[in-house]
Amino acid sequence: MSGTIHGVGLGPGAADLMSVRADRLVRTTRHIAYFRKAGRPGHARRIAADLLRPDAVEIAMEYPVTTEIPVSDPRYNACLAAFYADCTQRLADLARAGEDVVVLCEGDPFFYGSFMHLHSRLTGQVPVQVVPGITGMAGAWNATGLPITWGDDVLTVAMATLPEAELTRRIRDTDALVVMKIGRNLAKLRRAVAAAGRTAEAWLVEHAAMPTQRVTPLAQAEAVTPYFAILLIHGQGRRP
Amino acid sequence: MSGTIHGVGLGPGAADLMSVRADRLVRTTRHIAYFRKAGRPGHARRIAADLLRPDAVEIAMEYPVTTEIPVSDPRYNACLAAFYADCTQRLADLARAGEDVVVLCEGDPFFYGSFMHLHSRLTGQVPVQVVPGITGMAGAWNATGLPITWGDDVLTVAMATLPEAELTRRIRDTDALVVMKIGRNLAKLRRAVAAAGRTAEAWLVEHAAMPTQRVTPLAQAEAVTPYFAILLIHGQGRRP
Repeated sequence: MSGTIHGVGLGPGAADLMSVRADRLVRTTRHIAYFRKAGRPGHARRIAADLLRPDAVEIAMEYPVTTEIPVSDPRYNACLAAFYADCTQRLADLARAGEDVVVLCEGDPFFYGSFMHLHSRLTGQVPVQVVPGITGMAGAWNATGLPITWGDDVLTVAMATLPEAELTRRIRDTDALVVMKIGRNLAKLRRAVAAAGRTAEAWLVEHAAMPTQRVTPLAQAEAVTPYFAILLIHGQGRRP
Repeated sequence: MSGTIHGVGLGPGAADLMSVRADRLVRTTRHIAYFRKAGRPGHARRIAADLLRPDAVEIAMEYPVTTEIPVSDPRYNACLAAFYADCTQRLADLARAGEDVVVLCEGDPFFYGSFMHLHSRLTGQVPVQVVPGITGMAGAWNATGLPITWGDDVLTVAMATLPEAELTRRIRDTDALVVMKIGRNLAKLRRAVAAAGRTAEAWLVEHAAMPTQRVTPLAQAEAVTPYFAILLIHGQGRRP
């Protein structure tokens, strides 16, 4: 009897914002896997920390690269592909031995998540289940205390890794906006928002749904921690 | 001491996909409000049905119009504005009397939701809190068993109520796509997807996360129930 690999969405950052289904799996499953940067506790691990069984067996999957090799370098893809293949092997071996494994996923597993790279490799080998989660962006717009979209608003979700001209075009051509993967691209993103004439509407949300949550107008954002930041522009559509 | 109005996201449709925080509020709060079409049980009410206290006091807020008056008619807005003002009054009166109220919201309350119209009116009058939820669209892409976005994919969320030419342009100009509010606009949406050359990539998901869930390629979708349907095109971005 094979075990099942569960990709479990943890939501934006507060443990009680994971779903009842996710909470039950995280509390009861013995084998818990998560991605993290080498040498760090891991953000997903931190969200679930208080729920894990005392005898939980942890599988920390440490990214071999983050920003050391540019994404455009073929070695970046090769290195990550080998890493995901190795993680897949470890989890599939456990499942074949009859063990269930919960893979902790920030936000929603199928929305720009690392688990997707295991899911596509595991599918067909062993049973895989996914539990959706509240996205980081929903945590971010909730933090602002304002709805993100009204009526017929168009929402565009774009990554700050896009070329500057492309970002500008997208920001100009939407009602509501979410930008993620800000990281080293904050200066470029600021220029793109300004070129689209929308700086006054833009907000940066850091650490949404966590005790360190902070919401700052883009124009006033000086010392932001870009890795955990999401940029938002709220739609202003029809409202009776 | 004023009570608090809680706008609580229920997620896409399965009761165990609401957050732990939402579940706790729904189970413990005495006054439960929800929107519904007149004469119907109400979709939000149905998701939470098994969790309500036996002595729960229910406040059914029944839309005075749905499709009887076109959205473009000024009477539509006037009618809904009066309705939202009346609902606001009822809930604010309860809060002022010291009662907490949970307003059941499908999906996420700040993402194209009716609760937003109460939230903007209640703010400043009585305490209001929002609990985010898993969006209906996340339930839908989860139902397809495939990630919606990879790498640097752009995701566009658009309403099928947009003009056909605008829909076509948006569908052509995005990697991943979500279309909601399909209702009476399915024929128009089909034409727009075809004009953008993307029919073969499009899926219709009905009743995501519910026992009646159904995923159909758009090209084969004949007898769909459009009110509960979401159209998806998955992104095909970078994946190591």
